[in-house]
Amino acid sequence: MKRIITISREFGSGGRTIAKQVAENLGYAYYDKELIEEIAMETGFSKDYIEKRGEYASGTNIFSYAFIGRSPNGSSIEDQLWAKQQEIILHLAEKGNCVIVGRSADYILRNHTDCLNVFIHASTEKKVKRIVEVYGETDVAPEKRLRDKDKKRAANYRYYTDRHWGQAKNYHLCLDSGEFGLDGCTKIICELAK
Amino acid sequence: MKRIITISREFGSGGRTIAKQVAENLGYAYYDKELIEEIAMETGFSKDYIEKRGEYASGTNIFSYAFIGRSPNGSSIEDQLWAKQQEIILHLAEKGNCVIVGRSADYILRNHTDCLNVFIHASTEKKVKRIVEVYGETDVAPEKRLRDKDKKRAANYRYYTDRHWGQAKNYHLCLDSGEFGLDGCTKIICELAK
Repeated sequence: MKRIITISREFGSGGRTIAKQVAENLGYAYYDKELIEEIAMETGFSKDYIEKRGEYASGTNIFSYAFIGRSPNGSSIEDQLWAKQQEIILHLAEKGNCVIVGRSADYILRNHTDCLNVFIHASTEKKVKRIVEVYGETDVAPEKRLRDKDKKRAANYRYYTDRHWGQAKNYHLCLDSGEFGLDGCTKIICELAK
Repeated sequence: MKRIITISREFGSGGRTIAKQVAENLGYAYYDKELIEEIAMETGFSKDYIEKRGEYASGTNIFSYAFIGRSPNGSSIEDQLWAKQQEIILHLAEKGNCVIVGRSADYILRNHTDCLNVFIHASTEKKVKRIVEVYGETDVAPEKRLRDKDKKRAANYRYYTDRHWGQAKNYHLCLDSGEFGLDGCTKIICELAK
């Protein structure tokens, strides 16, 4: 039985919903916004700031903080946040059975053998349909919203882990949610966690 | 029910064995060496030559054939072989239920909705153990044998499909055979094909 399940996901693939369902089905703790809150409390950063920076920050942003955002030891706010996230995720993994969404948890917990690392993706067509249904239309074309968000996730992951985001070898299991459906993916993950 | 299952795999991951087991379990035709033979017969290339070139040729090799290996219309032997493989895979897919290993079949059949595309991978440690068990030791270190073979597969795939090999989004399902075992992977694929 896997004690920890990490779920990485493309924006619009329904990975967060699947993660929530998996946590419910298995009776596991679920960490996502909750995780952000915990980081926010510990670091004193505002919740909004962390939500934007925590997962989407890329190495390039560091330069814009060169003068205004450096601590006395010279590390950027992003670097401090990364270190803090790492610490908290390791702590949560010790605490008990859980499902963790995003935040490069697959990499942070790479040495944990009781961890199942999952990646959820879908075709652009399916993701466009989903984000318009779930989040509604905006001034920005849905294809561009998808691209922008995942580009930032990929850059952040690449910068801090030196791996390529969405590469099958980083995960035990990768699923196309457009093919299997959200409930189908939930079922597969729950069965394989056992 | 999926009529066609394509299995792409890292060298040493046991993907070929899994494919064979899936074909047996589902009562599907299995194409791998058989496919090569068919190509060989149709094209008149020797079987050995195709086995080496069919999947491992990369774009860069084309230059070495610039003078000795071009047909009157200017396409290289690799290009002709790629076109022929494509033709044969499309034909096999029409013919009946089947499992096809490698040969970029996931890309060639990308417009077939009755196709389940699978990628099998494993950690270097597990793959090293497996290739030494299955193929024995050679003068070349197993890590290098793994790297060389997959590098060629990746280059070939990239050249002809313009996609990145081993990227989760190219497949409906990616499995770590070191995590789930060969029999475990076979079971998952058979269940999801239904």
